[in-house]
Amino acid sequence: MTPTFAFAAYSGTGKTMLLEKIVLELKAKGLRLCVIKQDAHRIQIDKEGKDSWRFAHAGADMTIVSGPEKTAIIEQRERTLQQNLAMVHDVDMILVEGYKNEGIPQIGICRKATGLGLPAEPGHYIALATDDESLCGVVPCFDINDAAGIANFLLEKAGLC
Amino acid sequence: MTPTFAFAAYSGTGKTMLLEKIVLELKAKGLRLCVIKQDAHRIQIDKEGKDSWRFAHAGADMTIVSGPEKTAIIEQRERTLQQNLAMVHDVDMILVEGYKNEGIPQIGICRKATGLGLPAEPGHYIALATDDESLCGVVPCFDINDAAGIANFLLEKAGLC
Repeated sequence: MTPTFAFAAYSGTGKTMLLEKIVLELKAKGLRLCVIKQDAHRIQIDKEGKDSWRFAHAGADMTIVSGPEKTAIIEQRERTLQQNLAMVHDVDMILVEGYKNEGIPQIGICRKATGLGLPAEPGHYIALATDDESLCGVVPCFDINDAAGIANFLLEKAGLC
Repeated sequence: MTPTFAFAAYSGTGKTMLLEKIVLELKAKGLRLCVIKQDAHRIQIDKEGKDSWRFAHAGADMTIVSGPEKTAIIEQRERTLQQNLAMVHDVDMILVEGYKNEGIPQIGICRKATGLGLPAEPGHYIALATDDESLCGVVPCFDINDAAGIANFLLEKAGLC
């Protein structure tokens, strides 16, 4: 089972940006990574007129475009987290954005300025990334910009360091 | 094993357009389909600035974006046909563009005006789609625009009608 961690926060917290920085940190340590993002919106990934778009538009339920440096698989339906995880291979760690209720160990992110707090109680998370010190004390607490610290924490949790 | 057919032609033959029309025909008959395209070029699927692009740019080896009606899986490396086929699920037929040397039953496509002929001898294919009658006689031969005829031929070959 590949070590898998989810990042939970209300929108507007800067979750994607923090995740990006953590990916950079973990890549610098040589890990192979998968990021899975659950998007509540209609995603538009393929460009109009491109072959993948043309096949999907003609009705293909799945389209795979496989090139020398990249492969894209586009499926015209929703997939559960478990179905997505089943597609992942050859990575050392999986980072997940969304899928709050799937039992994956979560890092809670909270930015004071949003005024929204954490989606759940601090004890619900394995660690927090926040600039709100009043939330700290229950679980390991990192500054919301401390991507390096969080990356090291994940490596430790995953038994990869 | 899902019935799998490949389409072989030199570039500029109108292979993608014919394949699009065949997808439309087969979808009209209620089939669930996957199209796999081998692209010799560097494919650029994700849009700059979108989350999938950001994660890939930060170094994620795989990125999965999963929405209510669509899921995109982007992997930053080449995959073999077998690896791609292993990802396909819940479809009735797989149509392949490219992968000429993988032993999949092939439809050969040739358009006279290109002056390029077929990539292999007519007998190499299970059928031809062409406007060059001189190639016909060895295997079933369809007009290069007869997407409906080719779709019916594939359904029959696959034992789906």
